[in-house]
Amino acid sequence: MDMKAVLKASEGPGVTRRCVPVPDPGPEEVLVRVKASAVCGTDLHIAQWNTWAQGAGIRLPLVMGHEFCGEVVGVWSRVRALGVGDYVAGETHLPCGACYQCRNGLQHICKNLKLFGIHRDGCFAEYATIPELCAYRLPATIPPRVAAMLEPLGTSLRAVLELNVGGSSVVVVGCGPIGLFAVASAKAMGASRVIGLDVRDERLVLAKRAGCDIVLDPRQPATADRILDATGGVGVDAIVEASGSAVALESAFQYLRKGGRCALVGLPSDPVRLNLGPDVVFKEATIIGIHGREMFRTWTRMLELLTCGLLVVEPVITHEMPLEQAEEALALLEAGKGGKVILVP
Amino acid sequence: MDMKAVLKASEGPGVTRRCVPVPDPGPEEVLVRVKASAVCGTDLHIAQWNTWAQGAGIRLPLVMGHEFCGEVVGVWSRVRALGVGDYVAGETHLPCGACYQCRNGLQHICKNLKLFGIHRDGCFAEYATIPELCAYRLPATIPPRVAAMLEPLGTSLRAVLELNVGGSSVVVVGCGPIGLFAVASAKAMGASRVIGLDVRDERLVLAKRAGCDIVLDPRQPATADRILDATGGVGVDAIVEASGSAVALESAFQYLRKGGRCALVGLPSDPVRLNLGPDVVFKEATIIGIHGREMFRTWTRMLELLTCGLLVVEPVITHEMPLEQAEEALALLEAGKGGKVILVP
Amino acid sequence: MDMKAVLKASEGPGVTRRCVPVPDPGPEEVLVRVKASAVCGTDLHIAQWNTWAQGAGIRLPLVMGHEFCGEVVGVWSRVRALGVGDYVAGETHLPCGACYQCRNGLQHICKNLKLFGIHRDGCFAEYATIPELCAYRLPATIPPRVAAMLEPLGTSLRAVLELNVGGSSVVVVGCGPIGLFAVASAKAMGASRVIGLDVRDERLVLAKRAGCDIVLDPRQPATADRILDATGGVGVDAIVEASGSAVALESAFQYLRKGGRCALVGLPSDPVRLNLGPDVVFKEATIIGIHGREMFRTWTRMLELLTCGLLVVEPVITHEMPLEQAEEALALLEAGKGGKVILVP
Amino acid sequence: MDMKAVLKASEGPGVTRRCVPVPDPGPEEVLVRVKASAVCGTDLHIAQWNTWAQGAGIRLPLVMGHEFCGEVVGVWSRVRALGVGDYVAGETHLPCGACYQCRNGLQHICKNLKLFGIHRDGCFAEYATIPELCAYRLPATIPPRVAAMLEPLGTSLRAVLELNVGGSSVVVVGCGPIGLFAVASAKAMGASRVIGLDVRDERLVLAKRAGCDIVLDPRQPATADRILDATGGVGVDAIVEASGSAVALESAFQYLRKGGRCALVGLPSDPVRLNLGPDVVFKEATIIGIHGREMFRTWTRMLELLTCGLLVVEPVITHEMPLEQAEEALALLEAGKGGKVILVP
Repeated sequence: MDMKAVLKASEGPGVTRRCVPVPDPGPEEVLVRVKASAVCGTDLHIAQWNTWAQGAGIRLPLVMGHEFCGEVVGVWSRVRALGVGDYVAGETHLPCGACYQCRNGLQHICKNLKLFGIHRDGCFAEYATIPELCAYRLPATIPPRVAAMLEPLGTSLRAVLELNVGGSSVVVVGCGPIGLFAVASAKAMGASRVIGLDVRDERLVLAKRAGCDIVLDPRQPATADRILDATGGVGVDAIVEASGSAVALESAFQYLRKGGRCALVGLPSDPVRLNLGPDVVFKEATIIGIHGREMFRTWTRMLELLTCGLLVVEPVITHEMPLEQAEEALALLEAGKGGKVILVP
Repeated sequence: MDMKAVLKASEGPGVTRRCVPVPDPGPEEVLVRVKASAVCGTDLHIAQWNTWAQGAGIRLPLVMGHEFCGEVVGVWSRVRALGVGDYVAGETHLPCGACYQCRNGLQHICKNLKLFGIHRDGCFAEYATIPELCAYRLPATIPPRVAAMLEPLGTSLRAVLELNVGGSSVVVVGCGPIGLFAVASAKAMGASRVIGLDVRDERLVLAKRAGCDIVLDPRQPATADRILDATGGVGVDAIVEASGSAVALESAFQYLRKGGRCALVGLPSDPVRLNLGPDVVFKEATIIGIHGREMFRTWTRMLELLTCGLLVVEPVITHEMPLEQAEEALALLEAGKGGKVILVP
Repeated sequence: MDMKAVLKASEGPGVTRRCVPVPDPGPEEVLVRVKASAVCGTDLHIAQWNTWAQGAGIRLPLVMGHEFCGEVVGVWSRVRALGVGDYVAGETHLPCGACYQCRNGLQHICKNLKLFGIHRDGCFAEYATIPELCAYRLPATIPPRVAAMLEPLGTSLRAVLELNVGGSSVVVVGCGPIGLFAVASAKAMGASRVIGLDVRDERLVLAKRAGCDIVLDPRQPATADRILDATGGVGVDAIVEASGSAVALESAFQYLRKGGRCALVGLPSDPVRLNLGPDVVFKEATIIGIHGREMFRTWTRMLELLTCGLLVVEPVITHEMPLEQAEEALALLEAGKGGKVILVP
Repeated sequence: MDMKAVLKASEGPGVTRRCVPVPDPGPEEVLVRVKASAVCGTDLHIAQWNTWAQGAGIRLPLVMGHEFCGEVVGVWSRVRALGVGDYVAGETHLPCGACYQCRNGLQHICKNLKLFGIHRDGCFAEYATIPELCAYRLPATIPPRVAAMLEPLGTSLRAVLELNVGGSSVVVVGCGPIGLFAVASAKAMGASRVIGLDVRDERLVLAKRAGCDIVLDPRQPATADRILDATGGVGVDAIVEASGSAVALESAFQYLRKGGRCALVGLPSDPVRLNLGPDVVFKEATIIGIHGREMFRTWTRMLELLTCGLLVVEPVITHEMPLEQAEEALALLEAGKGGKVILVP
């Protein structure tokens, strides 16, 4: 049986729409009929075939896409807990199960991590296969357009969980989807004030909608002073860095309070110059790298927060389109337009 | 100069309204004109002169009351950070500053702890003196009737902070004021589901108003089963025990999930029989005793949560009356009526 | 092929030595040639067929024993990380892999936990099968008589890890093997003073040998006062309760400092009466139930500590005998004699 | 009365020995007869009058030195807990008592921090005054040459406490006194393997003596590979960065395991370029700035560890000389010779 899919078929820029065979799952895998996918910056890098993509260990052709939800339509011999008809979302991180990290409760940063949609075929298609271990069962109350975004939402929520933001002030640097999810997560977890920074007006509008109390364009003079003023001169308790911008990071410590915490989620493309003496040592700042969700502690709390209505992420979705328009979706990302784009097969 | 005050003047039941001299503050103390006080169960114990009160080291006559806010009207020689006109609330725990706990960041459980309104004159009066260290400055936006309750509210918030409730389910056992504050705090901090238990219908109504998703009378059969059902058979992540009831505690572990946490705030009058093997060891439960607020980490986060509007405690106040009606206020407590009672001098 | 084994063959007291077939491992299991086993109180309960054993879900006949190490001599089809010749120890807790706890990093307290040597055949035999997941690979430098005890040692180390004992004073209540392992673990982790309590002189001698700085018989008058004296009147930072004695627990809070922590490892056979007000609430004590080792964080640190020589547990072994003398070993436990008993097939 | 003292008397390089009046303590201060001082890199910067010193807010003339112990010989009116004859060490960080950090348990990083020996006269003299709050009482069993070093030792111990090193592998980068203290602290707290890095052979000898299991010169090729080999390819659990070298920091993440932690104690003089994507985000590394000891949690545990004999720091002392030879002591530091230098008035 064949299915529609969006592929990275060859080196160089561009993607290909093509019919390919519905994949065969392995013995510990499930076959999922995709209900919705979401588009991520990584997908754009692969489409552009940039330096990162060229070195990422991708074998072509590749069915693109890694954020999705769907219905289990096939379970193979050793699948134990899932059954046909289950509604699931996919965890991108595919752990090996045997390394130090996997044996010590850190499988989400497995040493031999494989990534769904990068190291094996992904979800920009009508069907996808995924190890049972990486399919997370959902209640029917989560709509597919939200369920398709649980993977990136989980990354942001994880950052917020590590920052312990209840009753605290938080700056979110960069209000793309990851930053917007961090804003929503921080509000859900009791952050008293959330300040969003971005250089695009359109994103600041989204940031307000996602829950920011204050939004600022960091190119305006005295941004750090305005943040300090908003915190009585103390500085903010916590920062979520979701821009990957070296400039943003280098100035973030100006408005972090002494003893504050900063979670790094964004990926700077180049080395970042930090004044570690004044910014980290004297300030006793803590910097925490975040690479995805804990399996599955973060998912558990995310589903609780979504189900009870405290975590509201619909405002982050700005576009929903058929899978056939994947190129258009990628063009929106390339132009820095909008929030999250959903693709429906 | 004289002032109105409510005193415990002699042994045996009852309180006395009398004019007494406005107190003279010591060199590290401030004189506060009381704007509002709140009535606590401890005040009732002192009024009743029960066994606990008889052994609590109280010297009579005593100006009663320990929960209050007001305006600083006098500062003495060594007062450094406060000034006349400051709006403050009082911390009941008066630490010695020299013991192991005071030197190790635990002054709220100072080994030689003195209690305002118990070991020295309190706030059921027009004026009160308090060490500068124990006067917490407030923004003008907190109304006095709320500011008068920050001390007990801080105890409940502290319990909730220790339980790390964001995205978690919580049972609050006992929906008197401490329990109601725990309900409001849990919702503010992102608890996904809050279940309130009490044997009085009136309090369950208040519990709903304070933010409970579910309220239950624990005397109904199958209460534990209903809580288990509400959590998919897993049990709740956390419990705030605010009833002091031995029966309530002994049954609480039935609905706590394996690996769950329980904060004890209520004071059982008698020893409690616990099945530590199945309830704590096999379940890997954690039990945490809570005796007040951290000085002043808890206060800082409490003010943040109140100021931003996430923490809403007005519904807990059911009565506000002039100081002259203190006996009526105590009678309400004795009858188990209502939520928090505010006294205005 | 047949092998020697020690069985619980029928209800009522006693054990049976008998030849039984070498077991066949399932597809995700390994066959291990047992090098050494250790005897646990649970084995004694099964042998005695006491009330607990009768209700523990045991199907007879059962090959007894759950603490062991050995060499992998067979691996079946889906075994991935282990191979023939590997030297392994066994984890008793067999998690289901699908429940809330298993999905949230708490598989050691799986809701559907099965126990090796209780719910399936164990290790008092020449050979045993165990799921690959529960076989922990060891370096050759750990001698079999030590490797056989890693399961109970891990329980004690886990308790000590939760108590954060570096530079702290610790009381270990009950100096049977679990208590002795806690003494050794506390010293390895930097506990500044370890005080051992037991009612048997023989065990106090072992406690000294395992690393205690002070040993006391709790039946002597003024035991609590002596512990307070040893800590400058402050009380100890931490307690490991390894006696299961209600009397011991009820008095333990007398010498725990305000803000101290207590890990419960021992299993009281009856309900324990606790004065939660003064002992837990006013003291802000934390009580932590411990049921085994984290999989496999605790194992990882245990192996590190053993390999580097900081954790020394040889003094806990008082007897080593052939498997044929299992009844004699159980008699030693019944008489409360000695420390750990090792059985060699 | 006059006393011998070592002063920074004027701008430009050099120090001055001169007799100055014994200082008068303020009302909350104690007068201490100095028994021993220790020399710190900061003292050298002040002597050299380098760029940092010129901008550090120093008013000349200044009695230099901030690490010391001595005997209280005078207490003024408001001193409460200390008395004449007490044996004390000095805490360099002088908190304001009123800022956000001081009110929230972080007085060691007070926003308005003043430093003893930098912003007010220090301890390279026969007598010194210090606020009672910053004088920590010691048992007589700590010899003055050790007691003089508790301030820097506390910084290293604090870093080690934050890293939670029991049963873990640790690299200490830079084996000057702070690094050597970190080595000794890590061993005392149960680190299973401590690897010391330094470019000077002399310091590697000291590092071995302080407790390192392995010492390496990072200029040798394949240093990172050797560390990875020593940890089975996993990488180390924790790093203490005590060199302030940008090169060292930039390469440290090569041998930190995924999920590892790095405490920064050293002060890089220039910005450091970090590859935050691979080194921190993908690795989920945590970086923690450490600026001194917690008041006084760290001191409490330090004294426990010293008193029980687990923390051994005598090997770090390589020179002890009379106060008159302060210039010689500073010359040793300038030449990068030796470990800690003690000055005795």
